Amino acid sequence: MSTKKLRKDALAIFHAGVKAADPVIAVKQHFRLEDGILSVENRTYDLANYKGVYVVGAGKASAAMAQPIEEILGDRIRASAVNVKYGHDVPLKIIRVNEAGHPVPDEAGLKGTKQIIQLLRQTGDKDLVICLISGGGSALLPCPVDELTLENKQLVTKCLLEVCATIHEINAVRKHISKVKGGQLARLVYPSTLISLILSDVIGDKLDSIASGPNVPDTSTFSDCLHILNKYNIRQKIPAAVLEHLERGARGEIKETPKADDPVFKKTQNVIIGSNILAVKAAREKAQELKYHSLILSSFIEGETKEVAKVHAAIAKEILSTGSPVPRPACVISGGETTVTIRGKGLGGRNQEFVLAAAIEIDGLEDVVILSGGTDGTDGPTDAAGALADGETVRRAIAQGLDAEFHLRENDSYRFFKPLGDLLITGPTYTNVMDLRLVIVG
Amino acid sequence: MSTKKLRKDALAIFHAGVKAADPVIAVKQHFRLEDGILSVENRTYDLANYKGVYVVGAGKASAAMAQPIEEILGDRIRASAVNVKYGHDVPLKIIRVNEAGHPVPDEAGLKGTKQIIQLLRQTGDKDLVICLISGGGSALLPCPVDELTLENKQLVTKCLLEVCATIHEINAVRKHISKVKGGQLARLVYPSTLISLILSDVIGDKLDSIASGPNVPDTSTFSDCLHILNKYNIRQKIPAAVLEHLERGARGEIKETPKADDPVFKKTQNVIIGSNILAVKAAREKAQELKYHSLILSSFIEGETKEVAKVHAAIAKEILSTGSPVPRPACVISGGETTVTIRGKGLGGRNQEFVLAAAIEIDGLEDVVILSGGTDGTDGPTDAAGALADGETVRRAIAQGLDAEFHLRENDSYRFFKPLGDLLITGPTYTNVMDLRLVIVG
Repeated sequence: MSTKKLRKDALAIFHAGVKAADPVIAVKQHFRLEDGILSVENRTYDLANYKGVYVVGAGKASAAMAQPIEEILGDRIRASAVNVKYGHDVPLKIIRVNEAGHPVPDEAGLKGTKQIIQLLRQTGDKDLVICLISGGGSALLPCPVDELTLENKQLVTKCLLEVCATIHEINAVRKHISKVKGGQLARLVYPSTLISLILSDVIGDKLDSIASGPNVPDTSTFSDCLHILNKYNIRQKIPAAVLEHLERGARGEIKETPKADDPVFKKTQNVIIGSNILAVKAAREKAQELKYHSLILSSFIEGETKEVAKVHAAIAKEILSTGSPVPRPACVISGGETTVTIRGKGLGGRNQEFVLAAAIEIDGLEDVVILSGGTDGTDGPTDAAGALADGETVRRAIAQGLDAEFHLRENDSYRFFKPLGDLLITGPTYTNVMDLRLVIVG
Repeated sequence: MSTKKLRKDALAIFHAGVKAADPVIAVKQHFRLEDGILSVENRTYDLANYKGVYVVGAGKASAAMAQPIEEILGDRIRASAVNVKYGHDVPLKIIRVNEAGHPVPDEAGLKGTKQIIQLLRQTGDKDLVICLISGGGSALLPCPVDELTLENKQLVTKCLLEVCATIHEINAVRKHISKVKGGQLARLVYPSTLISLILSDVIGDKLDSIASGPNVPDTSTFSDCLHILNKYNIRQKIPAAVLEHLERGARGEIKETPKADDPVFKKTQNVIIGSNILAVKAAREKAQELKYHSLILSSFIEGETKEVAKVHAAIAKEILSTGSPVPRPACVISGGETTVTIRGKGLGGRNQEFVLAAAIEIDGLEDVVILSGGTDGTDGPTDAAGALADGETVRRAIAQGLDAEFHLRENDSYRFFKPLGDLLITGPTYTNVMDLRLVIVG
């Protein structure tokens, strides 16, 4: 097959993956209304049984998720409040959107969250609440307990990051100084019925990690939080009000976050409507449609980008050499999110750097195309989502005076691929389910 | 399945891979004599047509390869000379072995190589030469052209390494200042018939890279060598005698290394009898016999060990989560050789470090076992070939006061696994086809 055809196929496969994570398509696929009966995955809800329908939510994609919701539910929506990042608004007729700060939460986020809480105070046993959660939902749904300020919360996170606490430990503490995280939003919804639609941007789709799990049972306790502070010896460093709150909680003076056996969750349905693995699977379907032998490597991929790229290139080489792990024409798909340790002063992102590192490894090989792209349409501080390369890329670059090794060392993948015309540019996709990577051997 | 059973299976699969690369088994599988007819892969040789049979060779495993050869050919061997690394000798009755320096070539290696050349002077059109090549064969078969010393050669290599020349460029220069590398040993054998049996320790089994390809057409020229010196601006740094030799060669005053169309290679058969992919395939056969759904990921794996480990762990997680890339019970096998950037002061090797990094990633997961081992039975400066881990390893270590993250940071994998009893110890295997890695999900 010609490299041109392989590149065209790679783009089609990538776009099929991204499309599966499109908030509008993802919502419509998982949330259907027919003759007054709402079907959400394996459950149905007869809207005739509910007095009012409310919509709340937080996350970068939550306004985009709200659009099909208002299209489906229309005037049935009695009240709504959804927090999104500045600039991530979409035109809506019914659902009310609050723009707020991300990744650093701000007063607008706090105000929006208070509106959500206020709205939930009106709801009762016979109401239905739809909650739209997506990546960024943790920063966009800030609401520290009454004694604390946003600054208090941020300082605690900073202390925990400084001592290299795990994300699990940081989340445990965060959940216990918040009014909504760690299942507490679901508790505010209760006794109303809650349908939580989730677009996951977290490796492994752990529900209690996405947006700090506002509608999911929490497994951590106030006592755990104190243990964590002791373990890292930072009791003295965190604000006194925070420590006091955690200590009161550990003494049983403050209600714990809701646990798995809490009745709250009997009236809660959490549904992942979009995720990396769903995008990866959609990409595989497209690859199969295009007659590739296709293989999902893993949606859990993490690690240093350029090293992960070497493993992907090694798979391309084995396919060429022996037809393992899949025979030609082959398409190997991976997901997840890698990291870049920045050593240079260049411009780029993890997806472009992945493709640059892979291009060096596959230099001179025929019939190999490698693509990596962010499903949100942005890769690092650039206007590209990622890039494509084949066995000729490094040579084409040399002809233009571009040294692949130099650009990799400088983390300058954008300025390598731009002159070659090999950037992958999609524009904003209004979704984010991490990255998609393709190894195609024609 | 119990972790105990998974560990037992992992060991059996690893040993099956190593066994396939055992020099004795590998030679016997590819070199058969029946009724005076020698079968070597797809060719046959009627020994009645040959006046004399000679055995030469160089490499760490070449004495071990010689043992089945003398068992098969016995008194038919008229003369022999094989260079091996000090301490890699095995008891032989007929074939003559010279011990020599590796990785730095020494006078003993030079003397042994001269003996080989001397021996080949006796051979003619009607003789058959068997050449045994294995990893380390480049340093163990030193013979600079007459005007140069071993020191001259080493200095050139050092200069090229300092300017970060590629291995391809270094080999081009090495071949052009040697009497035997780059196909020139085959030319010395000519017009005798040559069977070259090769145990590959090189990723991708490129014949012209293994032991600097003594019996393989060379693609580089004297002119290329001068271009390389110019490119890195090191003409002034290398010994004058080397430069003069290369310049005379470029002017056509010295014979080029033999190229693909050279008649020499019409009487030459190069056969890879053992390699990483053959070991990987044997491991897969064993895994299938043990009823695992098995997948060869790649035998071309390179890159920073702990990052490569993360990708392997990510595959284990996907198998647990969705049954991709292979359903449970699954065994994913990879080969090749990773590198460790040493930052700490610990004791370990790339295989033990791989397993340590993977252990951290799979912490808490059930039914996962990860193994990595060097097929030569040694991993770094330790008495272990590698290690094993499962989802309980990190916790068992904590109970013994061992911190996995600390040991990884310090490159101290040996002292992590030894107290746990999780080292993989095989003793010397007399072969080397790089590493085998297993991800097992029961």
